[in-house]
Amino acid sequence: PDGQAEAAARARDAVLTKPPGALGRLEELAIWYAAWRGDPRPGLARPQIVVFAGNHGIVGQGVSAFPAEVTAQMVANFAAGGAAINQLARTFGASLDVHPLDLDRPTADFTQGPAMSEQECLAALSTGWAAVADDADLLVVGEMGIGNTTSAAALACALWGGAAADWTGRGTGLDDTALSAKAGIVSRGLERNATLLGDPMGALRAVGGRELAAMAGAILRARHARIPVILDGFICTAAASVWEKARPGALDHCVAGHLSAEGGHGRLLAAIGKPPLLSLGLRLGEGSGAALAVGVLQGALACHSGMATFAEAGVTDG
Amino acid sequence: PDGQAEAAARARDAVLTKPPGALGRLEELAIWYAAWRGDPRPGLARPQIVVFAGNHGIVGQGVSAFPAEVTAQMVANFAAGGAAINQLARTFGASLDVHPLDLDRPTADFTQGPAMSEQECLAALSTGWAAVADDADLLVVGEMGIGNTTSAAALACALWGGAAADWTGRGTGLDDTALSAKAGIVSRGLERNATLLGDPMGALRAVGGRELAAMAGAILRARHARIPVILDGFICTAAASVWEKARPGALDHCVAGHLSAEGGHGRLLAAIGKPPLLSLGLRLGEGSGAALAVGVLQGALACHSGMATFAEAGVTDG
Repeated sequence: PDGQAEAAARARDAVLTKPPGALGRLEELAIWYAAWRGDPRPGLARPQIVVFAGNHGIVGQGVSAFPAEVTAQMVANFAAGGAAINQLARTFGASLDVHPLDLDRPTADFTQGPAMSEQECLAALSTGWAAVADDADLLVVGEMGIGNTTSAAALACALWGGAAADWTGRGTGLDDTALSAKAGIVSRGLERNATLLGDPMGALRAVGGRELAAMAGAILRARHARIPVILDGFICTAAASVWEKARPGALDHCVAGHLSAEGGHGRLLAAIGKPPLLSLGLRLGEGSGAALAVGVLQGALACHSGMATFAEAGVTDG
Repeated sequence: PDGQAEAAARARDAVLTKPPGALGRLEELAIWYAAWRGDPRPGLARPQIVVFAGNHGIVGQGVSAFPAEVTAQMVANFAAGGAAINQLARTFGASLDVHPLDLDRPTADFTQGPAMSEQECLAALSTGWAAVADDADLLVVGEMGIGNTTSAAALACALWGGAAADWTGRGTGLDDTALSAKAGIVSRGLERNATLLGDPMGALRAVGGRELAAMAGAILRARHARIPVILDGFICTAAASVWEKARPGALDHCVAGHLSAEGGHGRLLAAIGKPPLLSLGLRLGEGSGAALAVGVLQGALACHSGMATFAEAGVTDG
């Protein structure tokens, strides 16, 4: 981030026509964005949403309430403009790109060995890297992948410790019995891949999935291009947290868009130290919670960059 | 609300391309809006924000960090487009009307007697009633009035019980000593006006202010015109709660836009049974928190009314 732009944004915030701090988290949000964009009075012109889709061998273990073919069906729904993320992208003026990743070649069942080879994982990372538009000034990454809350739970557990059950949630709607079975599957996957879990990238390939790797690649590219990121829910945050685990501070260019209703998300946000902007019980994925938070950022930046100062408005500063 | 539209909206929600409940509070929000508009698949075309400004005799007791002339200065700032609410109205496509209410004739100091005569209170209520556009499809009411967190604290305490200190907050930035003095002033005002506090309208005129009465009038008009309302922070909610106290359910056409950082707001939202949509530490007034929540409602309605159904999209329903 640009320290000079940050200081200038903070100085501007202090003289806007409002009591100090009265816009709460909107103020810090605008200053954070200004710092990453290197502009003390920034606008938001080209927010980009990228959704990655992948299929998971682990689905064979019965971890999802929906069948695997729904991944491809939902990709078609994205293309036709019928999904939630299409409506949210339009509402908040964001572009939307969708990248299906070898849907007819699911990852391997991670209870039997690594979900991906090194080459497969790198290919997905690099698809993510390449998916970010050079001129984007905000990035949201989302996902679609039947079974991917299981991968995300395993990845979060591998990276941040604790028991499998701490990270395992109901996904699209499991009952108690299926939830407990899912935690057992996560445990078995972690045992089977134990030798790979020592480093974050190893964990990503061992129990992650192509769309998780692609999200991680896109978030890394955004860091290099100084494009601020709004993180979505549990799966997105699990993928992003690979970098935070590898190097604390690696996600300083990201804010948490929302707290998902999926079990482990609150714990994961605490692990990476990011309080969510919204908490509305969403658990859809697709980048939907982060897309909704784009509206909050737009409001924050409109106030920061558009408001009059006390001097300009002739208002007495308390 | 229209039960038929509500049932149709609920039926639609159940077949949209998402797991049941996966859009969390957005789903109930869209259904609530559909019910009040009598349209199972509504849009949001003409949101209206109305800001009322008033001055308060109680300011003479030193309850605010800013001098009374700031009320008129901020009204000029609204007119010039320089305030936070101007930026938020533009961001979310809402119209903005500002009504200054006899700024050069503050209400009476309520520690000496009622803040307003019956006639003054009715005049303000009726200004609020008349300020709502017939064709608005959403209403946000906001306020500006140096000293009005003191009025709102007294009104909330009169309506909902408890101690003055429970409802008294730091306003635009009081220190501990001034906060404690402010609670004492609220107490004295309630004692002095005790005979008027038995009914909600009496409490409004005894310790309220013109902008509080005007907000109450606008919210009542919205109910009659079936215009859904997003409530703003502590002062707006205190004014609105006059109706809820008079008749439980009177605010069914309202949702709480946000939880303000002002002391008593959480308690007040609990009293009227409305969980906030946002909680971002705002404490500015002007309708700013509610305006930010307009973006959430836009997202909710875009999803509800724009998404494809499972049948339309050819997606397998889990």
